[in-house]
Amino acid sequence: MRETAISGWLSIGSTYSAEIIGCSGVDCVTVDLQHGMIDVQTMIGMLQAISSTPATPMVRVPANDAALIMKSLDAGAYGIICPMIDSVSEATAFVAATRYPPKGSRSFGPARGLLYGGADYFDQADATIVRMAMIETQQGLAAVEDICAIDGLDGIFVGPSDLALALGKTPSNNSIEPEIVAAIDRCVNVARACGKQAGIFCSSGAHANARAREGFSFVVPNSEANILKSAIAAEVNAARGRRPL
Amino acid sequence: MRETAISGWLSIGSTYSAEIIGCSGVDCVTVDLQHGMIDVQTMIGMLQAISSTPATPMVRVPANDAALIMKSLDAGAYGIICPMIDSVSEATAFVAATRYPPKGSRSFGPARGLLYGGADYFDQADATIVRMAMIETQQGLAAVEDICAIDGLDGIFVGPSDLALALGKTPSNNSIEPEIVAAIDRCVNVARACGKQAGIFCSSGAHANARAREGFSFVVPNSEANILKSAIAAEVNAARGRRPL
Amino acid sequence: MRETAISGWLSIGSTYSAEIIGCSGVDCVTVDLQHGMIDVQTMIGMLQAISSTPATPMVRVPANDAALIMKSLDAGAYGIICPMIDSVSEATAFVAATRYPPKGSRSFGPARGLLYGGADYFDQADATIVRMAMIETQQGLAAVEDICAIDGLDGIFVGPSDLALALGKTPSNNSIEPEIVAAIDRCVNVARACGKQAGIFCSSGAHANARAREGFSFVVPNSEANILKSAIAAEVNAARGRRPL
Amino acid sequence: MRETAISGWLSIGSTYSAEIIGCSGVDCVTVDLQHGMIDVQTMIGMLQAISSTPATPMVRVPANDAALIMKSLDAGAYGIICPMIDSVSEATAFVAATRYPPKGSRSFGPARGLLYGGADYFDQADATIVRMAMIETQQGLAAVEDICAIDGLDGIFVGPSDLALALGKTPSNNSIEPEIVAAIDRCVNVARACGKQAGIFCSSGAHANARAREGFSFVVPNSEANILKSAIAAEVNAARGRRPL
Amino acid sequence: MRETAISGWLSIGSTYSAEIIGCSGVDCVTVDLQHGMIDVQTMIGMLQAISSTPATPMVRVPANDAALIMKSLDAGAYGIICPMIDSVSEATAFVAATRYPPKGSRSFGPARGLLYGGADYFDQADATIVRMAMIETQQGLAAVEDICAIDGLDGIFVGPSDLALALGKTPSNNSIEPEIVAAIDRCVNVARACGKQAGIFCSSGAHANARAREGFSFVVPNSEANILKSAIAAEVNAARGRRPL
Amino acid sequence: MRETAISGWLSIGSTYSAEIIGCSGVDCVTVDLQHGMIDVQTMIGMLQAISSTPATPMVRVPANDAALIMKSLDAGAYGIICPMIDSVSEATAFVAATRYPPKGSRSFGPARGLLYGGADYFDQADATIVRMAMIETQQGLAAVEDICAIDGLDGIFVGPSDLALALGKTPSNNSIEPEIVAAIDRCVNVARACGKQAGIFCSSGAHANARAREGFSFVVPNSEANILKSAIAAEVNAARGRRPL
Repeated sequence: MRETAISGWLSIGSTYSAEIIGCSGVDCVTVDLQHGMIDVQTMIGMLQAISSTPATPMVRVPANDAALIMKSLDAGAYGIICPMIDSVSEATAFVAATRYPPKGSRSFGPARGLLYGGADYFDQADATIVRMAMIETQQGLAAVEDICAIDGLDGIFVGPSDLALALGKTPSNNSIEPEIVAAIDRCVNVARACGKQAGIFCSSGAHANARAREGFSFVVPNSEANILKSAIAAEVNAARGRRPL
Repeated sequence: MRETAISGWLSIGSTYSAEIIGCSGVDCVTVDLQHGMIDVQTMIGMLQAISSTPATPMVRVPANDAALIMKSLDAGAYGIICPMIDSVSEATAFVAATRYPPKGSRSFGPARGLLYGGADYFDQADATIVRMAMIETQQGLAAVEDICAIDGLDGIFVGPSDLALALGKTPSNNSIEPEIVAAIDRCVNVARACGKQAGIFCSSGAHANARAREGFSFVVPNSEANILKSAIAAEVNAARGRRPL
Repeated sequence: MRETAISGWLSIGSTYSAEIIGCSGVDCVTVDLQHGMIDVQTMIGMLQAISSTPATPMVRVPANDAALIMKSLDAGAYGIICPMIDSVSEATAFVAATRYPPKGSRSFGPARGLLYGGADYFDQADATIVRMAMIETQQGLAAVEDICAIDGLDGIFVGPSDLALALGKTPSNNSIEPEIVAAIDRCVNVARACGKQAGIFCSSGAHANARAREGFSFVVPNSEANILKSAIAAEVNAARGRRPL
Repeated sequence: MRETAISGWLSIGSTYSAEIIGCSGVDCVTVDLQHGMIDVQTMIGMLQAISSTPATPMVRVPANDAALIMKSLDAGAYGIICPMIDSVSEATAFVAATRYPPKGSRSFGPARGLLYGGADYFDQADATIVRMAMIETQQGLAAVEDICAIDGLDGIFVGPSDLALALGKTPSNNSIEPEIVAAIDRCVNVARACGKQAGIFCSSGAHANARAREGFSFVVPNSEANILKSAIAAEVNAARGRRPL
Repeated sequence: MRETAISGWLSIGSTYSAEIIGCSGVDCVTVDLQHGMIDVQTMIGMLQAISSTPATPMVRVPANDAALIMKSLDAGAYGIICPMIDSVSEATAFVAATRYPPKGSRSFGPARGLLYGGADYFDQADATIVRMAMIETQQGLAAVEDICAIDGLDGIFVGPSDLALALGKTPSNNSIEPEIVAAIDRCVNVARACGKQAGIFCSSGAHANARAREGFSFVVPNSEANILKSAIAAEVNAARGRRPL
Repeated sequence: MRETAISGWLSIGSTYSAEIIGCSGVDCVTVDLQHGMIDVQTMIGMLQAISSTPATPMVRVPANDAALIMKSLDAGAYGIICPMIDSVSEATAFVAATRYPPKGSRSFGPARGLLYGGADYFDQADATIVRMAMIETQQGLAAVEDICAIDGLDGIFVGPSDLALALGKTPSNNSIEPEIVAAIDRCVNVARACGKQAGIFCSSGAHANARAREGFSFVVPNSEANILKSAIAAEVNAARGRRPL
């Protein structure tokens, strides 16, 4: 990845829009199994579609569920973002699910890995796969130094809306509440100090760029569903001859 | 419909993005079976999703194929846009496929019609369904007066790219080639003179508004796939800190 | 088949409801590609599901379309009902699409045929497959003797609603209009005189039984969608403590 | 909801039968992810189809699985029925998964919520969503008072077959075993005393009405699969000219 | 099953290839939800397709997840292979999920069971369903005698690749590492001594036959994906006029 | 393509097996919409999966249907094989459907073309797309010189089974009937004399190699379904300890 990687984010369960995003100039594309309108079978086709583009396929799993993490990897994901990591033990379990023994507990059966990754998939997988733990609760925030120190974890990913909720605020991707700003600063600083990736979900490309300047190395300029929502609203507005939104 | 109806245009085969577009403020949404990455089974789910929004569901069929036109109507479409109408006989056959006997030849079996349209579907369908014939060839252009005069046809729909190709030009939705400008003018003028709808595919909302001012009563501010492509490119560009595209 | 065969009729695109109907005591099950909310890929799974039941799988195609007729057969249909047969030439073309040369023009590639039908599929297919031409227009009605005389056609199938429409009446499966009653009588009498099957779509099981007593040898006690609609309405009514509908 | 709400129950994985049930006069429709032949991607389309009808969409999840509960809500469910709730701690965890912090732990990302529920979804969701805990084990029965007392739980839902099994009897929805009758009475009485909803799965509409008269406020007149099974059997029987089943 | 049962193994998410394998002469077919590119909705269709063949349908679940085990059974699986069983308590929980109370905790709602298994499904299910616990870790290996002694467990299934990984070796289905050979010998011997089935995943039919001669009673001659991979490579090689691989 | 191109052939409707075949060393992969258990929506995902492999994606359409040919191209096919071409006029219509005006009549809207092919798709498409007309009837055979002479047609493709049927023989891919041998020789000789591709469906890789030595430049070593059928039968046979088939 480049200094700052930009990831597309997929909530629409379509292999075609997945390919559109993969061809858009992003570095990677994350299929969102948590809040996206996407289930596993659809994800498999989407990962295949992303494989035909220059972007690296990733998955945000809906929970720290080892079986689902392994299946996402077998289906060809090269990175996993895991929500709601609150402690070292949870982060350790997450990382273990992504690594073959003896370092981890991943079960062997890399279906698409062998097609997309090639015959040396088994040898290369552990070093190639990116693992990011989401920090979005008070407990996760409190444990961020210890989580960042875990061997095999590549970085953390901030979910600003859930973090805001956890801190008693309204969900927002770009809150200016001092407490939230401080919490996000803490995340990026700790991650950088540990030599780990710091990722974050943003509300737009401009916001993603601002986050990159704050030190984030992995930024998401909103989901394709939200980008489409704004863009179609703007076009409809223009079609009605109204002033820009 | 309002004075000028604005239609969303679906190329992505997803019920979720269909619903997003249906909730975007458009008057209707057209599922594009011709160039969209969408087949009939997916269309059925998309028409259901559109039914949950304020927008009217329509379908652009891939050809003047009576069986497929009837199936789209049974699946709940309230408007049909038919490509490549070159003559009165083709337009007449198209209209017949959308009307029950004695006015037409539609076969009876309005599956979703009875759910979405209600128990009086049979009585109301012919008067409610919108039928638009695409003018996109030299023959179609030559016959536009006669086509517009057909009873039961609600209007014409201009496919500017195919029309440009047919006139020996590069495909474009907003060509300034005089021959194409004249051809499009002719379409809108003839349709209005006949008291029929004049529809057109546009390259953006602003372009759709310009077309509305030209007299078009049904405008499409590009497909959701193209709108998403432009919007994600702009966001990625901003995320990289580059000047706006 | 027995003296009078009873066919389930599928409008709901689900492999599970297909299997439910196949296990319900019917002799065969017809997947309705014309008015059903079902496309070809879904049909394939439904034919597989029906194959696991005692019932014979059939397909009502949406039009006299040779490619689609052949694909339905390759997918394992053992009977084809073809709508809108108006003439001997149409009926002949329909039959030809279901038979291998030299008797017909079916292309060779019986994918599921070899699995479901067995290794002798090629030798047995032409003799085993049932072909029924729908009589539902004035022209079809006029030509019914000639259509019934066609070699290889196993019978005719009456679509009462479309026939009623064609005769200028309201669509209905059990019309008492003398003209429609006479037309239906004519169909069953001609078919029996020719030693061919006479099939008809009915509004209920009781109606199907009445049709059987009129001489029909293949009866459909309504679609599963309509049966479900009536049954759920009755249960909801009972749940509200109201008198039976 | 009315005094007694009637819910459809979906086991067939089809968006079309979902819409049929939603249009049948029921107050709400529950997609059964536990015993239904339905997975998450199909459920999303079914919830969209239900959204186009007057009925409120609900989901019976297959287990007390927070990620799946959240995804069902994001997909537009307005009620969740959770099986196998045996204790206050399980019921509390279930409720927490349906509520945003600080009252609960639901993660923020209400994809279809914003479309179907509108822009104020976040503010309204917690007050609008209905949560019912299934009482179907001896432990659950023993803890029913404490479970009913939980803040945020809207009611309990009795699974009579599993409850019968748990009490050593044959699974049945309308058992007359005194022990089961007593257990069900206890559930409805405790729920009413706590001012909570009492729901139950019934074997028919008439049975649902009887349950309503017993005090149940949420009744299910069997699944659409079972209703279809009975109805098709009755029609086939009638078609064969046999006496009613 | 015969003395030694041969099971097909499905990784490709297609109902058609499922049917091909079911017709291939195998005794049973296992849908692999763990490493296969298959999710639950697709599995349902595949189980239906297998039901139309002489082979018994089975499922390898992705984890010891009671809800998913129950759903696989409701969908018509007649055998469950459960991965990563490390202890008596895990094996007991697995078995419980497959049995109705009082012997187990399976929830009642046998959707396809009643269609495929028949009206006596409830009475026969517990005795008919085959349960196999996978031994593929050091803990599982250590506990194999105790696991084999569990009432209701029909046998064990060795995952040689994961077992090799667990023992610090390269994943392989036919390792000649003495430690692995000894571990596999131990599994088959313990299972036979307990009168239980001993199953194993093999690299080919010849290998499966060798395993049968070692005493295994349930053998898998590789997945259909791997068999296809080898076969297509051989055909392409031959097409290029090269010597056999 | 190389001197002799080898094409995989897909009858199984799975994106995963499509990717397996695309990674098998073939030059291209043909999705068979005619006899394959595959419909258009599934084809779109399969073309995306093939796009992630080194192989060129192609489609065999089910009929000379312009709308379907155009949709296959929009979905990313880079070659079309069209069945049942009997005359110059049919071949000309086929070719026209694949070319933009003024050379043809293809409608503009290259959805995946712009993603997979790149921004210059419109300029390059006509020169890049491969068009092969199937010769499988007596009329087609009689017209083969004239068909091969058509501008824009890249070659012919022999369907030996249908050709055998058309000549009154049993369907076979490697018949030794002199009449069929002569017909096939004629096809390859005419095509080569015209400087066109000569393609043929073969029964195995060895057979494909023999066909290449006969002069065919495009050979198909059977479908993946047939290859899998033979391979699984061989493995099951070996697993039973029987002598090789």
